[in-house]
Amino acid sequence: MIEANRQAVEQEIQRLLSRGAARAGTLPLPDHHDLWAAFSRATGGGKRFRPHLLLATHQALGGAREPAAVQAAAALELMHTAFVVQDDVIDGDQVRRGAPSLPGGIAADARRQGVGPSEARRLGEAAGILAGDLGLIAALRAIACCDAPAPVVDRLLDLFESTLHASAAGELADVRLQLGPAEGAVVLREALAVAELKTALYSFQLPLRAGAILADASPEVLTALDEIGSLLGIGFQLFDDLLGMFGDEQRTGKSALGDLREGKRTALIAHASTTDIWPALQPLLGREDLGEDEARRARSLLTAGGSRAWVEDLARWHVNSAAEAAMRHDLPPGLVTSLDLATTEILRAAELTLPTPTSEHRPSSRDSRPRAEEELPA
Amino acid sequence: MIEANRQAVEQEIQRLLSRGAARAGTLPLPDHHDLWAAFSRATGGGKRFRPHLLLATHQALGGAREPAAVQAAAALELMHTAFVVQDDVIDGDQVRRGAPSLPGGIAADARRQGVGPSEARRLGEAAGILAGDLGLIAALRAIACCDAPAPVVDRLLDLFESTLHASAAGELADVRLQLGPAEGAVVLREALAVAELKTALYSFQLPLRAGAILADASPEVLTALDEIGSLLGIGFQLFDDLLGMFGDEQRTGKSALGDLREGKRTALIAHASTTDIWPALQPLLGREDLGEDEARRARSLLTAGGSRAWVEDLARWHVNSAAEAAMRHDLPPGLVTSLDLATTEILRAAELTLPTPTSEHRPSSRDSRPRAEEELPA
Repeated sequence: MIEANRQAVEQEIQRLLSRGAARAGTLPLPDHHDLWAAFSRATGGGKRFRPHLLLATHQALGGAREPAAVQAAAALELMHTAFVVQDDVIDGDQVRRGAPSLPGGIAADARRQGVGPSEARRLGEAAGILAGDLGLIAALRAIACCDAPAPVVDRLLDLFESTLHASAAGELADVRLQLGPAEGAVVLREALAVAELKTALYSFQLPLRAGAILADASPEVLTALDEIGSLLGIGFQLFDDLLGMFGDEQRTGKSALGDLREGKRTALIAHASTTDIWPALQPLLGREDLGEDEARRARSLLTAGGSRAWVEDLARWHVNSAAEAAMRHDLPPGLVTSLDLATTEILRAAELTLPTPTSEHRPSSRDSRPRAEEELPA
Repeated sequence: MIEANRQAVEQEIQRLLSRGAARAGTLPLPDHHDLWAAFSRATGGGKRFRPHLLLATHQALGGAREPAAVQAAAALELMHTAFVVQDDVIDGDQVRRGAPSLPGGIAADARRQGVGPSEARRLGEAAGILAGDLGLIAALRAIACCDAPAPVVDRLLDLFESTLHASAAGELADVRLQLGPAEGAVVLREALAVAELKTALYSFQLPLRAGAILADASPEVLTALDEIGSLLGIGFQLFDDLLGMFGDEQRTGKSALGDLREGKRTALIAHASTTDIWPALQPLLGREDLGEDEARRARSLLTAGGSRAWVEDLARWHVNSAAEAAMRHDLPPGLVTSLDLATTEILRAAELTLPTPTSEHRPSSRDSRPRAEEELPA
């Protein structure tokens, strides 16, 4: 992200957090302070991928609503944090990227004060749900108050609200898919639909479309960006699934055992369920005590059975199709460059953290541009 | 509620729910439909106490923004539903008022499809969190779009947002209080603070203040209404605590064992911890297998030790002080009447469902006016 943009977004996020801290007035209990402080901490450390995409789109399309774009970009980051925090509640994740998640941190504090493990966990989960609520409301409120004409604000509010509905549906479907039968083409189709709803819409389509709305872009540009956002988003999610299974823990910051132990029905697993390796793989999924040896066996099966290559190809197809769509639709050159950078970043992050066995057939994106970010957008 | 008001609010709630149903467009998965249908069902059956209070306040203060008041009233009901649904997740309640809660209903559906109990519960909880998010967003959005001048809308948004922050703090404190030491004056003070934050602010102060803002009321009236709302709200919550322990299950629709089994730190229990009966009572709290005999013993102890009478007196003091404040502050006669009706309703609901042992010292509110509602506002 351009340094001036980055600073403007950070300042706006801090302003929204300060505003939130003052929201409850002087309450007679410490809980509001603790809750909002935890949420504020949870906003830190991110790479601001979504704000960057929004601002870059707005600028590339010749938008002149810089303050409103910064406000919307900061709102997007709060919304992302709220999703992350509630996702950790829903998935029962006590750790995120090597540090305690918001629910995990609150639970750990309570444990240190002598609270029993299940009660501490319950407190952490309550805090996660409530902090997420406040973050979502702060995000929507920031949009409602942003420095743009009322019809533009209304379109942004519509966009945020629709995206929230779709993301909630994707999140619920993600949980539901873990519960049903693990096999077959239906599951594979559903896993891709979840990738679109849970990730593509809010991480790609929303920032692209919001930037374009703020730049008064034509309906044709909006439609093109929706197509591109969907392709990039699904591609990104597929790479993320690959990283969750084959990624270098040192680089991704997440355990490569987690998805296996959770028995997560990713596109990778869904594809494997249509292959001959399935009878050997299935018993290894969803076992909380799964060890490193068994994980290696699962990874070998996925590679040998062709699921890894299939998902890598599919991921690359999506990301490359996004780049092609950006060329095909008559988009401004600045926007094409910006989308190309996003594409390159996704491919390079995958390349960095998925070192074998596909290094021999890398796409053309391996070039010498300096790396802006060290890992996939988070 | 006046019949015309009631119909207008119902229509507006239905309009917002239809709008929400269309929000996600045509998704490739059934989850959005299921989620929103469950949320829509959860909005039903309520007595619309908060919308009524908002509309009555707006009208009594000579407000002329009827459409906006109806929109805000419906928004308030969606926000209330969102709180209820997420509260059921936080408290692990599978049942509400004799029917499955939203999380409980989703879990029961999953069970019928062969999902195991803990996975079904997890799905229900995810649905509760996400449905609550969508409900809150729908409520805030309805306020943002309501038919009032921008500065009024902005004040309403501020009010909703501040109330959400305080309610979230109250909810978290409520969970936290269950975990700490159960004894002493500090706990009693905290239990009253929770009553204020979790109930008084959003169930009383918010509707009163929103109605007054829409009616362009003076700062003096707003301050008076805050005082009155706080007193009514705390009084209501104290009666609700009493009903949770001594209430007639047939009338309250909730088990009189629930609070005991949960070990809920209500003002009643907090007071008991300062009395001689505490050593006998404490072992009966928080036991999931508590039987009817032991519950009777706990109730006898609370009555004999004076905690029941103390809380009843405190509840009545709050409600009566609210009525006095309504007289003292030079409020319009229509508003005083409206507040008096709310007060009477709270007292009569308590009287109906708390038949003994205090029937000999009832306040003056026992008169022959027909009862508008059969139980406490829900």
